[in-house]
Amino acid sequence: MKFVCSKHELYEAISTVQKAVMPKATLPILEGIYIEADENVRLVGNCFDLGIEFSVKADVMSAGSIVLNSRIFGDIVRKLPESEVFFEVKKNYNTVIECGNSYFEIKGMSAEGFPMLPEIEEEKKVSIAQMSLKEMIKKTIYAISTDENRKILTGSLIEVQDGEFTIVSLDGFRLALAKALIKEAVEFNAVIPGKNLNEIHKIMEQKEDEVKITLSENQALFEMNGCRIISKLLSGEFMNYKYFIPEQFETEITVDTREFINSIERASLITSDDRRFPVKLMISDDKMIVTSSAEIGISKEELKVEMDGLDITIGFNPRYLLDSLKVIDDEMIRVSFSSSVGPCVIKPIEGDRFIFMVLPVRMNS
Amino acid sequence: MKFVCSKHELYEAISTVQKAVMPKATLPILEGIYIEADENVRLVGNCFDLGIEFSVKADVMSAGSIVLNSRIFGDIVRKLPESEVFFEVKKNYNTVIECGNSYFEIKGMSAEGFPMLPEIEEEKKVSIAQMSLKEMIKKTIYAISTDENRKILTGSLIEVQDGEFTIVSLDGFRLALAKALIKEAVEFNAVIPGKNLNEIHKIMEQKEDEVKITLSENQALFEMNGCRIISKLLSGEFMNYKYFIPEQFETEITVDTREFINSIERASLITSDDRRFPVKLMISDDKMIVTSSAEIGISKEELKVEMDGLDITIGFNPRYLLDSLKVIDDEMIRVSFSSSVGPCVIKPIEGDRFIFMVLPVRMNS
Repeated sequence: MKFVCSKHELYEAISTVQKAVMPKATLPILEGIYIEADENVRLVGNCFDLGIEFSVKADVMSAGSIVLNSRIFGDIVRKLPESEVFFEVKKNYNTVIECGNSYFEIKGMSAEGFPMLPEIEEEKKVSIAQMSLKEMIKKTIYAISTDENRKILTGSLIEVQDGEFTIVSLDGFRLALAKALIKEAVEFNAVIPGKNLNEIHKIMEQKEDEVKITLSENQALFEMNGCRIISKLLSGEFMNYKYFIPEQFETEITVDTREFINSIERASLITSDDRRFPVKLMISDDKMIVTSSAEIGISKEELKVEMDGLDITIGFNPRYLLDSLKVIDDEMIRVSFSSSVGPCVIKPIEGDRFIFMVLPVRMNS
Repeated sequence: MKFVCSKHELYEAISTVQKAVMPKATLPILEGIYIEADENVRLVGNCFDLGIEFSVKADVMSAGSIVLNSRIFGDIVRKLPESEVFFEVKKNYNTVIECGNSYFEIKGMSAEGFPMLPEIEEEKKVSIAQMSLKEMIKKTIYAISTDENRKILTGSLIEVQDGEFTIVSLDGFRLALAKALIKEAVEFNAVIPGKNLNEIHKIMEQKEDEVKITLSENQALFEMNGCRIISKLLSGEFMNYKYFIPEQFETEITVDTREFINSIERASLITSDDRRFPVKLMISDDKMIVTSSAEIGISKEELKVEMDGLDITIGFNPRYLLDSLKVIDDEMIRVSFSSSVGPCVIKPIEGDRFIFMVLPVRMNS
């Protein structure tokens, strides 16, 4: 096995497939990256929950395959000069990596026994622009539950229906939903583990190029930029989230997103030592007064808002509000309150390309 | 007590004096910042080993003093809008901080019992440009020992003599020395604790303005930018470092600093799992071959050098070489080897504004 490729592309491939390699595994081969050369070169990392394959343009002199320890292979290639890398497997899996004046010879492992990626039978398929999916994941991933006792909520629901692609996360205190239009007339539901979505989010780029998503019973395949990512699905029934989102509101306001964030951040400084104390919003006369109070002291701040409906006083865990507000790029947003003890809904001024829901905290006073 | 000042300047003062405030102390007052208003406003943080005082321009309406919890005071001011801050102490040490639309009222503490900075009797005094001292600390701080059993080596020696200002750190494996010229005809020695030098390094700016250093028996005072920093000194005799630096060399080379760093970094990837294996330098024929070898594999790289003296083969712990090389900005450096088992000395091509010394590792082969 012998090939030449660019250092830059090889390192991009390594750092991508490394996201699917276990840093500590019981078998050395599971801490490895599989490298195969035929027409091109492809690298594979696989930790069973998540598998990633990345193709690299290369000038292949002789075909073959090898497994190299992921950490050492990655460290070496990262530190090479920006030039052509010469790669050759010699006797006893000894692997030569040469670039510029640098020469490395490291011990590899037989590729036999490496867990190759499963084939996905093409059942259901949908395409969406990378930048759009990346944005939707960013907008919803924060609301994924960390409670391993409700495993299904440690993932996000992807729901494809009626020409809409929707992602939903929820954890019992808040819900985040983002949606986009698609061309395909296909229907499916799948729950992708949160940590895999996080890796997929990092791999996707800010570009219009599409990512193709193929679904089988237990797995989803994401294809983009010469990269194939296979994620297992979480099994079980996701919560019927539509049931939780209120549609009738007592009070609705339009507010500057940045000003709202700043005022809650400041108020939460007072309560940060003690989560018993919520941040309180008092809305009336086109004003919102944000207050907080704890043993250390009090804070108070007034914001201008546009208001419809009744006066309202409502308390929130500031972290839950901030998690939602901070993923919003819109300058102004619409915040709707069902009642002083019911959920509040945050949406764009127009449309519903995202919907965030946050439960309030009951206040003593 | 009542004053108005700029948020920006107040936050600069807080973040500076915070470096001398204990994050966790037995007494709440020791987690506090002392604030005093008379003509101006001054803030003080003091953890006994290190004390910092910072003056802020302010419009003082009424004089007084208060102690506020450092974390909460800092967090609040950091988050205020960039505007004028109104500060007022009311009944029962309740302190109002107002800025833009934000209003905070937090519980303060009586300033009685706060450990004020000691007066330094002016014994010996020296001045040096901030950027020059900052650079000298950067060049030497990495070689400070972390071994608490040899307390004196957990600090850096400042030696002022014959119009030279010298800083020296050493830890038994390497030594770092940096020097600059001064105008004063004064002589002293003082050992400043490493962690205080680190804070002083952060506070100093990249500018020509001088820092004044005043020495008493147990303390050193650093004055710059409206800031007074008092550090305790380490007591005891520092090692006679001059004795360790060789002056006779078998081999000397001139090498490109960046290329030397890169080649050692690459070689150290092979040995990183096991410090038993040194990086080996083989110097002959105006070439330096950098090699390493461990269970995982081997590396080899050739560098062009300008060479005087005998051929030599010598091994180093790569971390010790890298720590020294990485604080050097000079494009080319002079590396001198006393023998294959004696210390190596790294210096600029001309002069001796810094001298680094590293002990080699004995090699089996």
